[in-house]
Amino acid sequence: MTSALFRRLCARFLRPARPREPSPGLRNAFARNTDFGAGNCHCCCASTRAVVPRYGERVKTPPIRVTLVDGHGPGPAVCAAVRAVLKATAAPVEWDRQPVSVHRDPTTGRPIVNAELLESVAETRVILHGPVPDTASDGSQVSTTLTLHKALRASVGVQPFASVDGHRPFGHVRMVNVRDNVSGEYSENEHLVTPGVVQSIKTVTRQHSEAVARFAFEYAVANGHYHVTALHKANVMRMSDGTFLKACRSVSTDYPDVDYREEKLDKFCLRVTNDPCRYDMLLTPSLYGAIASAAVSALVGGPATVPYMAFGSDVAVFGTMYDGPAICRKDVISEPVINPTGIIRSAAWMLGHLEMPDKRLLIETALNETIRQGVKTRDMGGTACCEEYTDAIVHNISRLS
Amino acid sequence: MTSALFRRLCARFLRPARPREPSPGLRNAFARNTDFGAGNCHCCCASTRAVVPRYGERVKTPPIRVTLVDGHGPGPAVCAAVRAVLKATAAPVEWDRQPVSVHRDPTTGRPIVNAELLESVAETRVILHGPVPDTASDGSQVSTTLTLHKALRASVGVQPFASVDGHRPFGHVRMVNVRDNVSGEYSENEHLVTPGVVQSIKTVTRQHSEAVARFAFEYAVANGHYHVTALHKANVMRMSDGTFLKACRSVSTDYPDVDYREEKLDKFCLRVTNDPCRYDMLLTPSLYGAIASAAVSALVGGPATVPYMAFGSDVAVFGTMYDGPAICRKDVISEPVINPTGIIRSAAWMLGHLEMPDKRLLIETALNETIRQGVKTRDMGGTACCEEYTDAIVHNISRLS
Repeated sequence: MTSALFRRLCARFLRPARPREPSPGLRNAFARNTDFGAGNCHCCCASTRAVVPRYGERVKTPPIRVTLVDGHGPGPAVCAAVRAVLKATAAPVEWDRQPVSVHRDPTTGRPIVNAELLESVAETRVILHGPVPDTASDGSQVSTTLTLHKALRASVGVQPFASVDGHRPFGHVRMVNVRDNVSGEYSENEHLVTPGVVQSIKTVTRQHSEAVARFAFEYAVANGHYHVTALHKANVMRMSDGTFLKACRSVSTDYPDVDYREEKLDKFCLRVTNDPCRYDMLLTPSLYGAIASAAVSALVGGPATVPYMAFGSDVAVFGTMYDGPAICRKDVISEPVINPTGIIRSAAWMLGHLEMPDKRLLIETALNETIRQGVKTRDMGGTACCEEYTDAIVHNISRLS
Repeated sequence: MTSALFRRLCARFLRPARPREPSPGLRNAFARNTDFGAGNCHCCCASTRAVVPRYGERVKTPPIRVTLVDGHGPGPAVCAAVRAVLKATAAPVEWDRQPVSVHRDPTTGRPIVNAELLESVAETRVILHGPVPDTASDGSQVSTTLTLHKALRASVGVQPFASVDGHRPFGHVRMVNVRDNVSGEYSENEHLVTPGVVQSIKTVTRQHSEAVARFAFEYAVANGHYHVTALHKANVMRMSDGTFLKACRSVSTDYPDVDYREEKLDKFCLRVTNDPCRYDMLLTPSLYGAIASAAVSALVGGPATVPYMAFGSDVAVFGTMYDGPAICRKDVISEPVINPTGIIRSAAWMLGHLEMPDKRLLIETALNETIRQGVKTRDMGGTACCEEYTDAIVHNISRLS
């Protein structure tokens, strides 16, 4: 993807597109339920003034077909929750449910996703997926999410973190991570030099780094982020991480209103726990992005509460961060709990992307209201099971709409 | 370094060597001041039954010469604190103070440490250093610690984490990280493919991974660690991280009493914040070790409270984790504070290494007693400056000895 094309892509995804504004009553309810109200939004979970990424021409005629992958573990349960919530909002979405599996290409040994899933996404161009297995069909370890991102060329990831009112285990945390999804350490370029000696090659290109950085700065401007922090280890990997930083610095000069900063990854991991407020938007290469996201998601109540998006030139991927049962409190370790918060938030994002900002706002308001009412899953310190939690959200949706 | 040689090295470093046992009174004082008392020690900060790494034959005749590098920033202040504390214990240590600087080799471009420092360490074989600058003489970013480790062939790092009684911002955390210091991402092997395209080559060898793993398991057995968790990203870097894991698994079969586990790095970063008790000893490749250490050090009160050691075949390096002012609480961000806890702990380790376990115990007991008395630096929530804090430790040493 060329930088110019990517820039146009960013502009298309991020341009203000609000065909249907939410009603004043709903907006007030949202403002009451969260401090992400109008004028204070630094995160994409906020809605009243957030810019809604849009999909394009294909999706304008309802019903809109969306590929849905249940995944494994808690996947079927959380995807059932999403379907119930979207049904309650009467969103004109038609699910194309597909399985996901990864096997290795017999000639190259590289992991590839099952063809029927790719065919479905080629048609729908929007995919929502639950937790996906981290083993290939031959039993070897694999990152299914990465394989999917590469197959769909979803090269930029966006992960918003926001502790919701009523569940703030580490205080008020609000951040967004814009990351490269597919290059750097995730190039998957490895070889055996001699038995017992292996090399992994991390490839960083100026062009791709600039494209990701431009996406991040466009996003920052569109969503009111006031500073962007690039994470790196350029004191060790001077050339590769140095190339990434040079690209970020170069792009940052085009956005004088956004403060640009740099931080070493290990220092970030150290500081974010004690003082998350010092970060607003993160701009990260592939592996560092995964680590930073994991570190921050622990501060907002676990990965099960965090949505993620990934964008390519003609596809949008929505999902959650976890790839297993959401276990994040010591007292519930022995008993896996299922928390659909992240994927419901992700589905709300998806509706925004599909030009339904009112429905996005409705879901987010109902979700926040539910947590404020004390209906929480066990990993959030409550007693509700996944179904009870979903029912409460659905009830709040019908009450608010 | 061959694996067999490294094994002998481990055995030498870690064999029980207690020429002078601490007095019962001091041992009781230590047990009163910390829960690292006899029988409960899972960390090297514990002393009463911890195995003391020893240096070898050279150091037996006092005074023992030790290379001391003040470093930059808070370095001179914390090194002055160390000198005062060691003087109070009457440890027969003679400092050989040296500056540190890094410049680039004009032919290879690789960073190299100043020759006088290396000559000093070649003689003393023990070095204690404060925070070191992260810029080379030409102003470019560089990891001075890594350059030093490579120059001294200090290939294995040991970092113990323990929140002390009286300062537990995230509850009771106790862990130790044994890490590879010099290979993997830290190979510093990079090249320009074509303008704008850079590759970093991460080299992992089975032999070196086995040596590090064996060091870790020997250490675990000697110090009573009951499980070892290897951190990896083998779902993405299957061959390189896979080689590391294979080596760890292979070595773990020789130590049936130690439980061996594996965890993905991002999952670790997520889980450690919410439940640090699930980890006992970490076994990490180079970059992942730095990230894990940073994440854990945030949980025990900041890097300024954490000591580190690095071992090579004929050298021992002692230092602290931070490379700048210890800033870890929001309310003191505007004002750098100097906290010598980490380097004083590190000096105590050094005395243990130099076959003075009674003095090591004395320093650790006095340090814990000081914190329990409420004398803390500002980053630990107290009001004492570095000098007041050091004076209190010195006072406790003279009271206990």
